[in-house]
Amino acid sequence: MPTRIYRPIHVGTLASGTGLLLPVHEIKGDRPGPTVGISAGIHGEEATGVEIVYRFLHTVELNGLAGRLLVMPVANPFSYAAVSRGTPIDMMNLNRVFPGNAGGHLTEQMAHKIVEGFLRSLDVYVDLHSGGSTPTVDYVYIINAEELSRAFGSRLLYRPKETLNGTSISVTRGLNIRSVVVELGGGRVDQSAYVSRGIAGLLNILRTLDVLPGPVSPPPAQVVLREIVTLRPHHGGLLLPEVTEMGGEVRGGQVLGRVVSPYSMEELEVIRCPFERGVVVLTHLAPSVVEPGIYGFMIGNLATAEA
Amino acid sequence: MPTRIYRPIHVGTLASGTGLLLPVHEIKGDRPGPTVGISAGIHGEEATGVEIVYRFLHTVELNGLAGRLLVMPVANPFSYAAVSRGTPIDMMNLNRVFPGNAGGHLTEQMAHKIVEGFLRSLDVYVDLHSGGSTPTVDYVYIINAEELSRAFGSRLLYRPKETLNGTSISVTRGLNIRSVVVELGGGRVDQSAYVSRGIAGLLNILRTLDVLPGPVSPPPAQVVLREIVTLRPHHGGLLLPEVTEMGGEVRGGQVLGRVVSPYSMEELEVIRCPFERGVVVLTHLAPSVVEPGIYGFMIGNLATAEA
Repeated sequence: MPTRIYRPIHVGTLASGTGLLLPVHEIKGDRPGPTVGISAGIHGEEATGVEIVYRFLHTVELNGLAGRLLVMPVANPFSYAAVSRGTPIDMMNLNRVFPGNAGGHLTEQMAHKIVEGFLRSLDVYVDLHSGGSTPTVDYVYIINAEELSRAFGSRLLYRPKETLNGTSISVTRGLNIRSVVVELGGGRVDQSAYVSRGIAGLLNILRTLDVLPGPVSPPPAQVVLREIVTLRPHHGGLLLPEVTEMGGEVRGGQVLGRVVSPYSMEELEVIRCPFERGVVVLTHLAPSVVEPGIYGFMIGNLATAEA
Repeated sequence: MPTRIYRPIHVGTLASGTGLLLPVHEIKGDRPGPTVGISAGIHGEEATGVEIVYRFLHTVELNGLAGRLLVMPVANPFSYAAVSRGTPIDMMNLNRVFPGNAGGHLTEQMAHKIVEGFLRSLDVYVDLHSGGSTPTVDYVYIINAEELSRAFGSRLLYRPKETLNGTSISVTRGLNIRSVVVELGGGRVDQSAYVSRGIAGLLNILRTLDVLPGPVSPPPAQVVLREIVTLRPHHGGLLLPEVTEMGGEVRGGQVLGRVVSPYSMEELEVIRCPFERGVVVLTHLAPSVVEPGIYGFMIGNLATAEA
């Protein structure tokens, strides 16, 4: 039987007198194997990943586990509580300040503790992101472990040219830790299908690693994108999306959505597909109140995708 | 007589239906001369710079002005209104995202508009910062215009090895615009002396440039620091400062302040001077409620300072 220990990382005491604790669950298997880390909630607004981790630990049978799991279900607790992308106390984006700084701003101090108390111990790392309060997203990054990224089971994958500075992945990649970044779910729609897929995806990665027993599910037909554009509105108001099929194809110039003013009743902005043949990676599945600059749509370029 | 035009830069419409306007005042002189830009409130929490600009425009006689002044009194209005360092809507630090991005997050869109509508037009640029809600600061950066930095009249100057990426100065320096960054005032103390010094400093820079008539005041004895360390607490609570003389000397190991818990009554942290001979560049002049990671103290190293 695997043993489970809860050993949160203490970051510091806050002005409210409460301690800022970063939760870590360690589950030790009965046989030797790698250390697999799973994190969610680096961006607190991306709460679907947190739910995936919660339900994964409550529903998946871990008997027969090899090695150990290190699970950080909510990497930025105050951001999670505030449903915000950054840390409310210092307004910093945790996933832009790695490897952090022991003497830096609070978010930099958190990043430093996450590196030293969590990331450094790993052989494999899966980081769960989602689309935030209003957008829904669905793809998996290929960083340095294509087989594992494919094993998660999403249809769209993305092979970026470079790893973004300051991300947790920039640290694990530098340490040669096999790393997967999942973008799944979010938005003002029922998350249960995304949560189920997330649990199945994590399980399939662990089976692919032979860390958990059981048959590996082969991935579906997958497309590897090499180019994704993020379209952000220049005006806030009510975003009325016109493409609401995740992974659907869109044509050049096709209207993706419109920002309208519920005050003046004017149309403020029309957002269109910039590629001849695009695929919907992130969209709004429901009309949403938006501010300028949010993640409106993300469109992959099928012309430059890998066959 | 100089003419004055208010021509704010329109960034976009927000979800609240209000327009986000960045204020710009243009004051045209009667004779030819350079365009001098003054900005404040890039960090909204640093409100003393905003007051300096307000009072400067209301009290300084601008007859005889050569060239023109372009004044942006509040570069980040929502940050100013929220008394926060970052933009509340997207939690980004405006002074880390320059030159911005026309299709980026809202703060990146703002930076882009500031570059195109303000910074690019300048021959000389003065950016006013201060210490925020709780700390007080007092020094001037030497970027690429030492005579102008000295002319502001502060006793402490700082010659950094590099210009921080993403700052407004990184843009103006790249454009060979003579640039001065002032750090003055802030904290929970009467700001009137800092405001008066700010007005006098701006006036003296303009006289040094021969943009305004009148005698130039020679600077006081000045020290040019080449090394400043920022000391941030690791715990929040009540910060009890023990050095409250701006520009005063401190010895190695000397206690600068203590963070205590008003809950448990314990002492949580002692912050000490790391240099054998230090000088106080930023401190807390009054006991303050603080979170971990804030600007606690900044100490210059006198051992490596320029004579």
